[in-house]
Amino acid sequence: MSGTLDFFFEFASSYSYPAAMRIGEVARSAGVNVRWRPFLLGPIFKLQGFDTSPFNVFPDKGRYMWHDLARTCEGLGLPFQRPDPFPQNGLLAARVAHVGLAQDWGEAFCRAVFTAEFGQGREIGNERVIRELLVGLKQTPEGVLARARSDEIKNALRAATEAAQRLGIFGAPNFVVGDELFWGNDRLEQAIKYALQRSTDKRS
Amino acid sequence: MSGTLDFFFEFASSYSYPAAMRIGEVARSAGVNVRWRPFLLGPIFKLQGFDTSPFNVFPDKGRYMWHDLARTCEGLGLPFQRPDPFPQNGLLAARVAHVGLAQDWGEAFCRAVFTAEFGQGREIGNERVIRELLVGLKQTPEGVLARARSDEIKNALRAATEAAQRLGIFGAPNFVVGDELFWGNDRLEQAIKYALQRSTDKRS
Repeated sequence: MSGTLDFFFEFASSYSYPAAMRIGEVARSAGVNVRWRPFLLGPIFKLQGFDTSPFNVFPDKGRYMWHDLARTCEGLGLPFQRPDPFPQNGLLAARVAHVGLAQDWGEAFCRAVFTAEFGQGREIGNERVIRELLVGLKQTPEGVLARARSDEIKNALRAATEAAQRLGIFGAPNFVVGDELFWGNDRLEQAIKYALQRSTDKRS
Repeated sequence: MSGTLDFFFEFASSYSYPAAMRIGEVARSAGVNVRWRPFLLGPIFKLQGFDTSPFNVFPDKGRYMWHDLARTCEGLGLPFQRPDPFPQNGLLAARVAHVGLAQDWGEAFCRAVFTAEFGQGREIGNERVIRELLVGLKQTPEGVLARARSDEIKNALRAATEAAQRLGIFGAPNFVVGDELFWGNDRLEQAIKYALQRSTDKRS
C-alpha cells in the first residue's frame, strides 16, 4: 500500500452512507490504506449549538440533502430508503464497530449498518437490529455487545470523537491525510490523490 | 448548444469564485449554454436566522472553508487572497452585473469582480472598485451605475433572488437544470452531465 487515509464517519450521517459503501473499492484500486474511524457527531454539533442534525434545523438544506442523497445513491447503484426518525442514534453501532474494527469484521459491519439504515430505512439504534446484523456476519451478539459496552471500547469511541474535534471536524464524512482534512463524500477522490502524492513526496 | 443551465451565484459567496472562473470553459467544452443569475443570499440567510455568513457563525466550518478554498484555487491555478471583511457587500456588484448580462460584458464583469475580491482581497462593496473594473471593460461607469440603480435593474435582481428562493436555494453557488438543483462548486460537472442528458432525452 502507498499512502494512508483516516476515514472519520458517523453512523447517523446521511452522506457517510455512500462514502462508506464506496471507499473500500476506491482506495483499493488506488493502493491507499484506509483506517475506519467511527466517531460521534452529537458532542460536536452541541458545541455548534445544535441539538439535532443541521439538516433538521435548516429545512431547505435538509430537503436538498434528501433529494441529493437519493440522486447520489441512484448514481452509485445503492438502495435508498429515508430512515425515520432522522438522525438515528448511532451510539451502539459505533461501539460495536470499534469492536469489529479491532478484529476482522469491522468494515463489513459498518457497511451492513449503513445498508440497513439508509438502504432499508431500519432503526439502527435498536439493539435487535444490531444483533441481527452481527448474526449475519457470523458473530455472537452476546459476546460482542458485552465487549461493546466495556470501558475500553467506550474510551476508544471517545478518543475517536476527540481526535475528530482536534482536527477541526464539524460534520461527516471526512477523509484525513496527515492533518489535511477533506469533508464530504464528494471529496474522496481528492483525498485519495492527496494521500498518494504525499506518500510519493515522503519517499523521494 | 445542447442543454441549458442556470448559474445562481452571489458575489459575497466564497465558493462562487472558483465556480464563476471555470464555468465558462467547462460549459463551452460540453456544449451547454449557461445563464448567469446573480442573486442575493442575505435575504435567504435571514430566513434561516443568520445575519452573517454561516462560515462566520460556525468557526470550525469557516476555518475549513478558507483552507479548502485556498486549496481549490491552487488546484485551478487561480490567485487567492482572503477578503477582509468577509462577507463583502455584493449588492452594487450584483446590480451592475444585471446591467452587463443584458448587454455583452456581464460575464467578464462577474469574473473581474470575483478576481478583485477573492484573488486580490479588494472591497467590492466600494463603488470606486466597481468603477475601476468597469473602466477595465471599456464601459462608462456613470452610465452603467445610473442604470444599475434604476428600478428595472433593482427588480431584475429581486426577481433572481425570488427565483432562487422558489427553487429552495439556501447557499451558493448553484447550478440549476429545469428544477433540478446542484449546490456547490464541486457539482458543476454533475450538473453539466445532467443538462446534456436532459437535452438528449427531450430530443428522443
